Amino acid sequence: MDVQAIEGAYEATRTQTERLAAPLSAEDQGIQAMDDASPTKWHRAHTSWFFETFLLQPSLPGYQVFDPMFAFLFNSYYVGLGERHTRSNRGFISRPSVSEVRAYREHVDSGMQKLLENHLDTEALADLAILGCHHEQQHQELLLMDIKANFAWNPVEPAYHDVATPHADAGPLTWTSVDGGIVEVGFDQAQPTPAGDGFAFDNEGPRHEVLLRDYELADRPVTNGEWLEFMQDGGYSSPSHWLSHGWGTVEAQGWTAPEYWRQEEDGRWTVFTHAGRVDVDLDAPVQHVSFVEADAYAHWAGARLPTEHEWEHAAVTHGGAPSSGNTAGRGIFAPTADPSTGMRQLLGDVWEWTASPYTAYPGFVPAPGAVGEYNGKFMLDQYVLRGGCSLTPDRHTRLTYRNFFPALTRWQASGLPLAR
Amino acid sequence: MDVQAIEGAYEATRTQTERLAAPLSAEDQGIQAMDDASPTKWHRAHTSWFFETFLLQPSLPGYQVFDPMFAFLFNSYYVGLGERHTRSNRGFISRPSVSEVRAYREHVDSGMQKLLENHLDTEALADLAILGCHHEQQHQELLLMDIKANFAWNPVEPAYHDVATPHADAGPLTWTSVDGGIVEVGFDQAQPTPAGDGFAFDNEGPRHEVLLRDYELADRPVTNGEWLEFMQDGGYSSPSHWLSHGWGTVEAQGWTAPEYWRQEEDGRWTVFTHAGRVDVDLDAPVQHVSFVEADAYAHWAGARLPTEHEWEHAAVTHGGAPSSGNTAGRGIFAPTADPSTGMRQLLGDVWEWTASPYTAYPGFVPAPGAVGEYNGKFMLDQYVLRGGCSLTPDRHTRLTYRNFFPALTRWQASGLPLAR
Amino acid sequence: MDVQAIEGAYEATRTQTERLAAPLSAEDQGIQAMDDASPTKWHRAHTSWFFETFLLQPSLPGYQVFDPMFAFLFNSYYVGLGERHTRSNRGFISRPSVSEVRAYREHVDSGMQKLLENHLDTEALADLAILGCHHEQQHQELLLMDIKANFAWNPVEPAYHDVATPHADAGPLTWTSVDGGIVEVGFDQAQPTPAGDGFAFDNEGPRHEVLLRDYELADRPVTNGEWLEFMQDGGYSSPSHWLSHGWGTVEAQGWTAPEYWRQEEDGRWTVFTHAGRVDVDLDAPVQHVSFVEADAYAHWAGARLPTEHEWEHAAVTHGGAPSSGNTAGRGIFAPTADPSTGMRQLLGDVWEWTASPYTAYPGFVPAPGAVGEYNGKFMLDQYVLRGGCSLTPDRHTRLTYRNFFPALTRWQASGLPLAR
Amino acid sequence: MDVQAIEGAYEATRTQTERLAAPLSAEDQGIQAMDDASPTKWHRAHTSWFFETFLLQPSLPGYQVFDPMFAFLFNSYYVGLGERHTRSNRGFISRPSVSEVRAYREHVDSGMQKLLENHLDTEALADLAILGCHHEQQHQELLLMDIKANFAWNPVEPAYHDVATPHADAGPLTWTSVDGGIVEVGFDQAQPTPAGDGFAFDNEGPRHEVLLRDYELADRPVTNGEWLEFMQDGGYSSPSHWLSHGWGTVEAQGWTAPEYWRQEEDGRWTVFTHAGRVDVDLDAPVQHVSFVEADAYAHWAGARLPTEHEWEHAAVTHGGAPSSGNTAGRGIFAPTADPSTGMRQLLGDVWEWTASPYTAYPGFVPAPGAVGEYNGKFMLDQYVLRGGCSLTPDRHTRLTYRNFFPALTRWQASGLPLAR
Repeated sequence: MDVQAIEGAYEATRTQTERLAAPLSAEDQGIQAMDDASPTKWHRAHTSWFFETFLLQPSLPGYQVFDPMFAFLFNSYYVGLGERHTRSNRGFISRPSVSEVRAYREHVDSGMQKLLENHLDTEALADLAILGCHHEQQHQELLLMDIKANFAWNPVEPAYHDVATPHADAGPLTWTSVDGGIVEVGFDQAQPTPAGDGFAFDNEGPRHEVLLRDYELADRPVTNGEWLEFMQDGGYSSPSHWLSHGWGTVEAQGWTAPEYWRQEEDGRWTVFTHAGRVDVDLDAPVQHVSFVEADAYAHWAGARLPTEHEWEHAAVTHGGAPSSGNTAGRGIFAPTADPSTGMRQLLGDVWEWTASPYTAYPGFVPAPGAVGEYNGKFMLDQYVLRGGCSLTPDRHTRLTYRNFFPALTRWQASGLPLAR
Repeated sequence: MDVQAIEGAYEATRTQTERLAAPLSAEDQGIQAMDDASPTKWHRAHTSWFFETFLLQPSLPGYQVFDPMFAFLFNSYYVGLGERHTRSNRGFISRPSVSEVRAYREHVDSGMQKLLENHLDTEALADLAILGCHHEQQHQELLLMDIKANFAWNPVEPAYHDVATPHADAGPLTWTSVDGGIVEVGFDQAQPTPAGDGFAFDNEGPRHEVLLRDYELADRPVTNGEWLEFMQDGGYSSPSHWLSHGWGTVEAQGWTAPEYWRQEEDGRWTVFTHAGRVDVDLDAPVQHVSFVEADAYAHWAGARLPTEHEWEHAAVTHGGAPSSGNTAGRGIFAPTADPSTGMRQLLGDVWEWTASPYTAYPGFVPAPGAVGEYNGKFMLDQYVLRGGCSLTPDRHTRLTYRNFFPALTRWQASGLPLAR
Repeated sequence: MDVQAIEGAYEATRTQTERLAAPLSAEDQGIQAMDDASPTKWHRAHTSWFFETFLLQPSLPGYQVFDPMFAFLFNSYYVGLGERHTRSNRGFISRPSVSEVRAYREHVDSGMQKLLENHLDTEALADLAILGCHHEQQHQELLLMDIKANFAWNPVEPAYHDVATPHADAGPLTWTSVDGGIVEVGFDQAQPTPAGDGFAFDNEGPRHEVLLRDYELADRPVTNGEWLEFMQDGGYSSPSHWLSHGWGTVEAQGWTAPEYWRQEEDGRWTVFTHAGRVDVDLDAPVQHVSFVEADAYAHWAGARLPTEHEWEHAAVTHGGAPSSGNTAGRGIFAPTADPSTGMRQLLGDVWEWTASPYTAYPGFVPAPGAVGEYNGKFMLDQYVLRGGCSLTPDRHTRLTYRNFFPALTRWQASGLPLAR
Repeated sequence: MDVQAIEGAYEATRTQTERLAAPLSAEDQGIQAMDDASPTKWHRAHTSWFFETFLLQPSLPGYQVFDPMFAFLFNSYYVGLGERHTRSNRGFISRPSVSEVRAYREHVDSGMQKLLENHLDTEALADLAILGCHHEQQHQELLLMDIKANFAWNPVEPAYHDVATPHADAGPLTWTSVDGGIVEVGFDQAQPTPAGDGFAFDNEGPRHEVLLRDYELADRPVTNGEWLEFMQDGGYSSPSHWLSHGWGTVEAQGWTAPEYWRQEEDGRWTVFTHAGRVDVDLDAPVQHVSFVEADAYAHWAGARLPTEHEWEHAAVTHGGAPSSGNTAGRGIFAPTADPSTGMRQLLGDVWEWTASPYTAYPGFVPAPGAVGEYNGKFMLDQYVLRGGCSLTPDRHTRLTYRNFFPALTRWQASGLPLAR
């Protein structure tokens, strides 16, 4: 194992979390306006708890737990580790304070430094350290998603930062034909796909053969302008394109546009972003649409969502070496158009809903113990998204990465590709 | 087309519905104790409304609608046909009475007789007539499911009939090995699978190739006795085998056994059936378990649920010519053990949960218009069950039949097969 | 005691209940569309259970309980008598059937006949028999209220009977001045107020002195026409006249008119009645308004609701000998105007909201045992209504009668008087 | 008018609010764990908004509103003043920050200083200034109630301060006999009762005559020790002493003790206080019991709650000149026993539930305009409490003061007196 690389990854990850939290006051870091959107402070503590629980406590000799109560407060869902604080109540924890959480992070960092330098004795332990970094990267994206969701409940509509999203022209929608047949999908350590650094979550494997038919995939995600056409054509007011449960939700929730959109008195559509409320950029990829909205749009457009295997196979074979994409490193935190041609924006900009329910790959076996609850426990009533978004840490996503959300949620940065 | 066969099927179907309703008083036929479980009267009217709406109104010259209000009251979910009565309020409709519903059925029967004899001019119309019969057969099963569910809310625990379920020995669980490879699944009119009469719902096709790995399938469903072992081993009290949302439901609902089970003061387990409350037969297949319970059991047993393709392929290649099975024609309305050996009980006894989310087969296109809402609109957050149960009309099910329910419901007669 | 009179009252009461149920089919008698509105069948059984429980079981030698399960099913709220069936599930009890409930009534009648003839040994027992009759009379009114409420959920809008409500002119609103001072209110056996037959519920006493200021009371209830003026003046669209919680309910429930009113496409207002949907009679007293609506109206009209003591004192001193009034004996089951002058419509037509929260009179002591739960247990968050309505049995109400309902309910026949 | 006195009261009130908030971090000041319990920051801003809205905007020439959005965020319920922020979402407002709220307070203070010095032109304006001070005093008590409630949701159980509650012996329960007759109650500017400073809320008048019977009032509130006897005698496990709705709440909420109590593993009872969790002091007055609990206790004890008029009359005639009492000035924020004899603890320690529903006194007229929504809008389904508690600002309460809460709430510092 490359200890120095792990140390570097650890430090870079931890530093980046702090950087993302920096624009937020202690008050900002405490709020939770909806169950799904955890406080910033909680993300900072929970990611530290992961290292403390799975690495420091079992494997660092003499490690002193920072505060025993934290295991109760900052466990997310690992039922194998005992009782935990009610998720919906995370916003009520004014104490421990943000300062105490910072001290907790430093305490864990100090322990991890010792562990990485002197006690990284097994591959398993090294793997856990790397897993902890990728886990924290996921929470970096959640931190950004969640603060936008939480700010959105404030009539003041606070801005996280003051960064304008650059505009580009989207170009017309074109299609790439892809041959089917028996193809391999999924991650394999021995033959990593492009755009990965050798790591993958357990749910990305085993690599296995699937049978695909010939298909076409759109070269870029659906744009806001195209979505607006759908809206203007009665997309949200007629059930014909919708799944039954989707239409029921449209009626019950009063959906008339993607999450965060609002029509101003002069007819303009605006959208709430990390930079506050701005005009909708018609060329940028649409995001914050649920699976059922994406499915209805595809139906309306005479197309369909690709399966996750179709997406992955096309990306591997026709996407070329994916550019770094519009991911979090750019610091924009919003999708933009890519004016080039050919299959593009595979990584970054928006997560792309696929038609695939989230299920185990053949032969999938979760890791034993509580850490194995990471992915497998959630394989129910969720749909797979691919490709990462503008909030995803650079190099965190890859072509085999399987993100997943329930079909009706909208606070994640989800857009859609089209297939036919 | 064989008009006489259609007439025969129509009459047989309609008569059977009346036969199933016969043991129930007008009062019994009106109750709806939970949203899912519609009143018997509603099933009798809704199935008639289907023929009136899709056949008589458009295609029988001079047909007079029985009562225009019925289209509002007895439409189930066809949003393409306008507003409909709130599902949860079906139990409040004391008028029209059961007598009026009988008159409605006779009015429709009279119209259908004319239509079938003199106006069955197109294949499309003949197909609709056949579809109407199969639709009504589905509601025959629902009628039986629902009256049990509705009676179960009555502390008196009424019995639908007075029929004892015969006991048989289940025999040990054995396994059949099945070769994988590229195999065909799904219905094709030109090459129907065993145990079908040439009809299939749209969601069973197109027939297509899938790629399977080698696998083993258990020769019979899991029994009540085996389920009791799971319970006694802490199945309902430890989260380790459960999907996250499943365990949350166990805790929230207080599940400790399958639906309708109750432990008596002397420790015996009893179960509410169409014949009232009886002792649990340890050899009979377990039923009224949800997908998440089935999945947890399989995990506990060191196995898994088969995919729907695995189930179908094994059934076609290793099931032999399925016997008629324990379906509704036997009049028992409860599953029993089959003491023979080899792969058995594929059709009848209990619906078998598969691991497969309910999605469209490649190339699936729903029928145009409101009748196309029949299946495709529900392809979200549901899981496929195969094989029929003791309530399913004889010859209604077949090896390509795809039933589907949400992962947490339990009022359907669902059990489970095992694979590994 | 006058045994013959009690026998006569018993028989008359029991017969009247059956007469009220007669227009309703077995199906009609089973429905419960909202928690508050019990099925007709339940009322028929519950009133019998009262006699069985409080008289026959303890006091009729050799009495055989009809069915032990009925004590569970048909107890309403007497917690002193053990577990009881969940109130909201009364509509699910298709068995026992209406026929069995009739047999239950006959069984109880047969027992009561024996008890009244041969075992009415104590005053306490005679009092219980009389209480049972008045209890059943209350349920006669509830039966009529509830069937209207239950029918109202049916889009068919069934009619209970076919009786037109006679129209009369209301005349202008005039006022009667009443002197205050120390006055006596409440029931006293030794000096019954006009319009009573010597019986009163425990909550009407003890008779006691209260201190009143001089006041004026309107000579008749507020009419539909006057209420329409309130509506047209923005009564339901501006918070200024409303109690805070009332206005919150207006917004949450979308109230724009009294319960059962509907504005037709041509602008007319119609109202659902026991005779089906009819035009609103502008001269008739308004009914089916909640306490908070009545309070808002009074505020808008520059008046207020009288206290219950003001109402009673004015009725006793200025109402003259109240005529029999428009009560259930007329068979109309809807209020009408009384074209005479002077203080009128004190008894019958509509229950009149008073400003008085429902509390115990000084020195009130409930009867010991379960029968004492009759009234005192409900002295919380309810408001007193006086005078009876068009559904109240003749001679059931009287000037000291204290009816009570929560401030937000509207299914009772409640209107309002005005004071200032 | 005494301008200097008003200036003094204003400054003292504003300073005291800041003093109460001082122990709380910015994070602490933002949380709202239940709808009833507003954030500290909100209280600080809302009280400033009151002065800005009702005094500065209309009456200070040239006054610049601090931030127009604040009128939306910090209006509580004054519907006459337009839309306002949803109450349950107050905890999501991380911005404006605590610092901005402090700046807002200073801006308002600066305006008020000018207004009080130079523009206090009318009695009406002076009255509004005084009203604003008393309004802010009410929120001082709410601030203390609410932070305890909000902290209680944190498993860490933070302490607001580190102040031990002194113990004293309660002495046995003794009774004082009070003569009835026609007595005067309520506030009259011309003849203020003891323990007031000349101010009263509108709901305390008009002073008027009431008729009382002779009665006895207990000389001190019920203690924790006495409450424990009630608990040990099955108070929370038998319905016999409870109002129907109260018992339903006991069962639904699982109440087994007053709010904030907990039984430790060794059997001891502890209670969460502003000083963290401490042992229950058996001699101290019980608090945090709802009206229905207080009523059940009184019933169990063979007594009853006094009416508010009985309480006031006894307090005026037999309470002597009430001592300053255990109010907020002591800084304990918890009730203690008073070891003296005779009628005592009338003011301070715990609010005392009375049997009186909260209704308007005869002739009550609310102030015109939005400020008139202060009290009268809430006269529905609430019960009157008298006397103030350990959190009430010194000299804020008085013998005519009418506090009010719904019958089921427990987060206020409510105990009970007994009458018979």
